[in-house]
Amino acid sequence: MQISFRLDELVAMVSPVEVRGAYAGTIGRIAALDDAEVGSLSFLGNSKYRSSVATSRASVILVPTDYVGEPGPDQCHLVVAQPSVALALVCARIEHSLWPRPTPGVHPSAVVAPDATISSSATVGPLCVIESGAHVGDRSHLQAQVFVGRNARVGGDCWLAPSSYVATECELGDRVRVHAGTVIGSDGFGYEFVDGQHAKVPQVGTVVVEADVEIGANCTIDRARFNRTVIGQGTKLDNQVQIGHNVVVGRHCILCGMVGVSGSTTIGDYAVIGGQAGLAGHLTVGKGAKIGGQAAVTSDIDPGIFVNGSPALPYQLERRLLVLNRRLPDLFKKVESLAAQIDELKKASDL
Amino acid sequence: MQISFRLDELVAMVSPVEVRGAYAGTIGRIAALDDAEVGSLSFLGNSKYRSSVATSRASVILVPTDYVGEPGPDQCHLVVAQPSVALALVCARIEHSLWPRPTPGVHPSAVVAPDATISSSATVGPLCVIESGAHVGDRSHLQAQVFVGRNARVGGDCWLAPSSYVATECELGDRVRVHAGTVIGSDGFGYEFVDGQHAKVPQVGTVVVEADVEIGANCTIDRARFNRTVIGQGTKLDNQVQIGHNVVVGRHCILCGMVGVSGSTTIGDYAVIGGQAGLAGHLTVGKGAKIGGQAAVTSDIDPGIFVNGSPALPYQLERRLLVLNRRLPDLFKKVESLAAQIDELKKASDL
Amino acid sequence: MQISFRLDELVAMVSPVEVRGAYAGTIGRIAALDDAEVGSLSFLGNSKYRSSVATSRASVILVPTDYVGEPGPDQCHLVVAQPSVALALVCARIEHSLWPRPTPGVHPSAVVAPDATISSSATVGPLCVIESGAHVGDRSHLQAQVFVGRNARVGGDCWLAPSSYVATECELGDRVRVHAGTVIGSDGFGYEFVDGQHAKVPQVGTVVVEADVEIGANCTIDRARFNRTVIGQGTKLDNQVQIGHNVVVGRHCILCGMVGVSGSTTIGDYAVIGGQAGLAGHLTVGKGAKIGGQAAVTSDIDPGIFVNGSPALPYQLERRLLVLNRRLPDLFKKVESLAAQIDELKKASDL
Repeated sequence: MQISFRLDELVAMVSPVEVRGAYAGTIGRIAALDDAEVGSLSFLGNSKYRSSVATSRASVILVPTDYVGEPGPDQCHLVVAQPSVALALVCARIEHSLWPRPTPGVHPSAVVAPDATISSSATVGPLCVIESGAHVGDRSHLQAQVFVGRNARVGGDCWLAPSSYVATECELGDRVRVHAGTVIGSDGFGYEFVDGQHAKVPQVGTVVVEADVEIGANCTIDRARFNRTVIGQGTKLDNQVQIGHNVVVGRHCILCGMVGVSGSTTIGDYAVIGGQAGLAGHLTVGKGAKIGGQAAVTSDIDPGIFVNGSPALPYQLERRLLVLNRRLPDLFKKVESLAAQIDELKKASDL
Repeated sequence: MQISFRLDELVAMVSPVEVRGAYAGTIGRIAALDDAEVGSLSFLGNSKYRSSVATSRASVILVPTDYVGEPGPDQCHLVVAQPSVALALVCARIEHSLWPRPTPGVHPSAVVAPDATISSSATVGPLCVIESGAHVGDRSHLQAQVFVGRNARVGGDCWLAPSSYVATECELGDRVRVHAGTVIGSDGFGYEFVDGQHAKVPQVGTVVVEADVEIGANCTIDRARFNRTVIGQGTKLDNQVQIGHNVVVGRHCILCGMVGVSGSTTIGDYAVIGGQAGLAGHLTVGKGAKIGGQAAVTSDIDPGIFVNGSPALPYQLERRLLVLNRRLPDLFKKVESLAAQIDELKKASDL
Repeated sequence: MQISFRLDELVAMVSPVEVRGAYAGTIGRIAALDDAEVGSLSFLGNSKYRSSVATSRASVILVPTDYVGEPGPDQCHLVVAQPSVALALVCARIEHSLWPRPTPGVHPSAVVAPDATISSSATVGPLCVIESGAHVGDRSHLQAQVFVGRNARVGGDCWLAPSSYVATECELGDRVRVHAGTVIGSDGFGYEFVDGQHAKVPQVGTVVVEADVEIGANCTIDRARFNRTVIGQGTKLDNQVQIGHNVVVGRHCILCGMVGVSGSTTIGDYAVIGGQAGLAGHLTVGKGAKIGGQAAVTSDIDPGIFVNGSPALPYQLERRLLVLNRRLPDLFKKVESLAAQIDELKKASDL
């Protein structure tokens, strides 16, 4: 990553800001406080690293308003409300250099059905396939080798990475980002057991991904049996997340890597689900509920509740049981000793 | 999904059927009982929703033969042996409109080796790659961007979704369905530790997927070390399932999402494995065994046994231990109180 | 797999070797001892199968130097230091026939930016995309439908399978093998919660995969927030492994299938992580540590320690707690009986 920023450019990016100290050189690198050197930009994003600010060799450090301490010679502190948000602004500027706006148009190697509608401001990269009746919205960017199926709809300002797949009739809202290898609209997993065999239940519903959703790499989101699987507005999925058919994920949820949600489960807005957690089917997870990593959710969860464990229990209870579990060796010993004492008492009282 | 069926068309699809009541309009939608409106087709697939039939606004409802209750005005009950199977028949009709039979032939953008043999009734979609000596059987459909490696064999009436991959020398039987992003025939994970490094053990076996298997999206099935990894006839894999090298999965098994099976494990016919379960290597799982979601199987399982938990135990035992675990707080308290009573007794008896 | 080797050819492959007995025919198959027939090559790789050697119908058997026992008539034992290593040598020979060296050059259907630099000895297969400024090193083989992003760098003697993806600015060292569907350099999962929404933190770092790394199918490795995600030299990843942003995996590690490593965690050299294990973020795993399958690692692990369970504990402790857990039914019964005995004692002593 090649970057080169002057102090005044950084100040402009992260304003409003209070500047303490000065640095005349250019910033060519971003680094953690302990890893930084002259010419590095760093930041205090987590208060536990507070002590590292004074010893950091970074030339420019983003610090929060409550930070007390002066910069060293030829070092500059930029005092901002949220240093990690400020850093994100700087990274956004860098991102634009990593991902320059593509030139609108359809690459000659792409295979686009005559009746597909591609916005003139959209970019369809090399070796993409756009089937009949599909739509790609304004300024959307299909990077390369993307597949958009019959009558599928990609909104405006979307970004689809290589080998991502949007199946027939599925819909993406505006500003949806889909990372490489992600599959949207594969068949739900449904069979009827007939005459000793699993007969397929056709999956003729769709997937609706609302606006401002980001979906990680190699995720799978199944189409509904006959209605819609929904990913709510602003929700973010990490890599390798699996969403079963007819699932409804609310708005502004966070699903961490490798989470699996079984069919027909409904997840409330602002829920947060830890990595590798699994949810059984036909459940209701309340608004703002939190589910720990590797948890196994087998029953409904009330709004705002934090559950953990496999099977999942309310967090406090689950923690308490863990502690008692680790005390089992003592408990077994203690019961042995009580038994011995009782035998003594019996002898003493000739029972 | 645009559908429009008349009552007589539905009756024809789901026969044999007893018709109760009448509906003169057309059916334009399929919906759950509580979600249905005029013009909807609904069904009683699970007896716990029985009470919803009387209150449903659906115009046509598929009900089981033992359902008691009359349809409302301008409403029709179609009495069938298995409503969800009947619904599957309707969905199959709809599916044909979602996936019209493709035109046979090889898309000009596909890259097909001169000595590959493609049935004249098969369809090879845009940007597929078919390597030397590979075979694609009658009426099989490679949708787009599919890869079929050297000497690999795809049977008849197969369907392969975009970015699916069949590696060199691997074989798919007839009527196999492979969803997007699935990898069949990647190298098994085998190394010998030599001189402080992991030396690769070449994986020169194959994968054999028997007839009527369906494999979900983004699955991975490794080729054998030197013989065959097998997925048995009629078995169904959900999304993101991982099958290690030399594994033999029996016939008519169900492997739910994110299941992982380690190398050289054998799974009997009709086994059912819950989501995110993991099986260690070199195990034998008996015919008809059931494995709970997130279970960790570390030893052989007898036929017909249901195991659960991590590590997995017979279901009844695992449930009992869970219950006792949740009673640990009481147990600790009780032991404290017994100790106190014993101290009293000692004092009393001057021990 | 078609093979045909004469005994003298096998001897040459696995030398140094002591030959006991003789076999005049050709070897056309490799099989396990019990599965072997005339014309098969087999091997004693695991001492627990020692008794199967005498009864095996294999014509040629690789046995270790400490094996006692003579071959049967028209049967040959090849005595070597490590039979499974010797077998790997034979398989390597077969592998060359499965994967003949590709012809160097760029397939006409590949889309390669004019300023990308492709070694004249490299092979870029059909329908690959190589973006501006990217480099592909000597003798590297991009099989088909591979994507290499802007300014990305693929070293020498690499092999990339179909639908694998190397994002902009990411780097692969020499002799790196990447299996189908694997995504290297997707965005890290980072957001700031601002005004009730998750605002994306741009991920402008890279991924560096060092020499001799092998990465399984459908893995995901996220690019760093602003510096580097690293996979150390000689490390092997099985299928469907997820590596979060800023993770540093050491050298010669083994990560089994479906392992998930959260952001900013550091893993020491020679660590071994079992299937479906999950590691929380910002942890340090010491050199040579071992993590059991499905373990949930939530705190740092010292070098050489073996942990297991969810949450993970030192192996011995975790096993002991498991054993005591299974004895809970007895413990509850015992405490009941102690309580009864105490009541008796109280009556007897008129308390």
